[in-house]
Amino acid sequence: MGSAGLWQWQGTALEFRMSRLDFWFDFASTYSYPSAMRIVPLARDAGVTIRFRPFLLGPIFKAQGWDNSPFNVYEAKGRYMWRDLERLCADLSLPFRKPDPFPQHSLLAARTALAALEQDFGDDFCRAVFHAEFTEGKRIDDPAVIADVIRGLKREAKPLLDRAQSDEIKRRLRAQTEEAAKLRIFGAPTFVTTGGELFWGNDRLEQALAWAKRN
Amino acid sequence: MGSAGLWQWQGTALEFRMSRLDFWFDFASTYSYPSAMRIVPLARDAGVTIRFRPFLLGPIFKAQGWDNSPFNVYEAKGRYMWRDLERLCADLSLPFRKPDPFPQHSLLAARTALAALEQDFGDDFCRAVFHAEFTEGKRIDDPAVIADVIRGLKREAKPLLDRAQSDEIKRRLRAQTEEAAKLRIFGAPTFVTTGGELFWGNDRLEQALAWAKRN
Repeated sequence: MGSAGLWQWQGTALEFRMSRLDFWFDFASTYSYPSAMRIVPLARDAGVTIRFRPFLLGPIFKAQGWDNSPFNVYEAKGRYMWRDLERLCADLSLPFRKPDPFPQHSLLAARTALAALEQDFGDDFCRAVFHAEFTEGKRIDDPAVIADVIRGLKREAKPLLDRAQSDEIKRRLRAQTEEAAKLRIFGAPTFVTTGGELFWGNDRLEQALAWAKRN
Repeated sequence: MGSAGLWQWQGTALEFRMSRLDFWFDFASTYSYPSAMRIVPLARDAGVTIRFRPFLLGPIFKAQGWDNSPFNVYEAKGRYMWRDLERLCADLSLPFRKPDPFPQHSLLAARTALAALEQDFGDDFCRAVFHAEFTEGKRIDDPAVIADVIRGLKREAKPLLDRAQSDEIKRRLRAQTEEAAKLRIFGAPTFVTTGGELFWGNDRLEQALAWAKRN
């Protein structure tokens, strides 16, 4: 359950609970892009609260024996993924451009996202990073690109970038990635309900929301 | 285009074409099970002809460096798959039982399927094998199980099993598996349109049918 509280209605205390779903993603992950763009309005319709949980797939892939994206390791699978994503984005009327290089190095974006999520524009920041990467073809490991993204949201870049490089945020991103591994997350996006039910992949977003709402 | 022909209507020759979709699957593949059970009525509604194309994932996985199912190689992914499949089958009201051992050895079933597909009960045979494996927990590498499946369809077992072991059928299964590799199929189920568009996974069945119909 995400938020809980009491309402008064005609003198009666009404308890309300919003179901919660954790949205685990890596900014380098291709299928995380359509999920990040879709999740907020879908969750609003479903009455589910979303927590954006950026993490790093790198250490998780490394534990599976990959030093690179599996889409680069397995050529036929990678070739298919790009075509599939292109079709998927066309169906969703989402602009799409293949990042170059792929995968992007997502450490800076993930740290900055954690800093933005401490404030009130975390979700907007995450969407804007995905947009810069998958629509404008920008390199999200470039601090100038991330600074532009922040300023595009009418915020000051320097304080947020400084906070992103603080020991506290670095530690929290490591902890978040360790938590993902403990939850047995093996790819992104992954949606996790408060009951610990995992749903992997953009294809499972609607099912995850329905599950979160029901349980 | 699957079938084409001419109809006469009020003295005018009408050409008709049925779109075709190839359904590539391995009897050992878990997500091929719900697809095999769903595809025929969905295709009928869409006006699309389905060709059942059994093949062997083993050589394709071997080329990717795996001597086993990736669901056994990658523990977290495998654990997730069983849970996901259980939820999926529950949603579809499909009975489900985890095969033991997993993966099953699917060579005999694939050969016998090719023999049945030469006749008029190929699709029924394929569904019955998936049912024996994923519902009754039977071992599909056991000739007695396959013979039971055939007899359950009111056919004689011995002639079909003999045909399944003929050089012609063995050669055709090898050719079919090589064709899958040439199409850059890397997993199952995969749906391929006559235009060469690939759709991978049970999740993509509806999209593949819509594509086949449109193109």
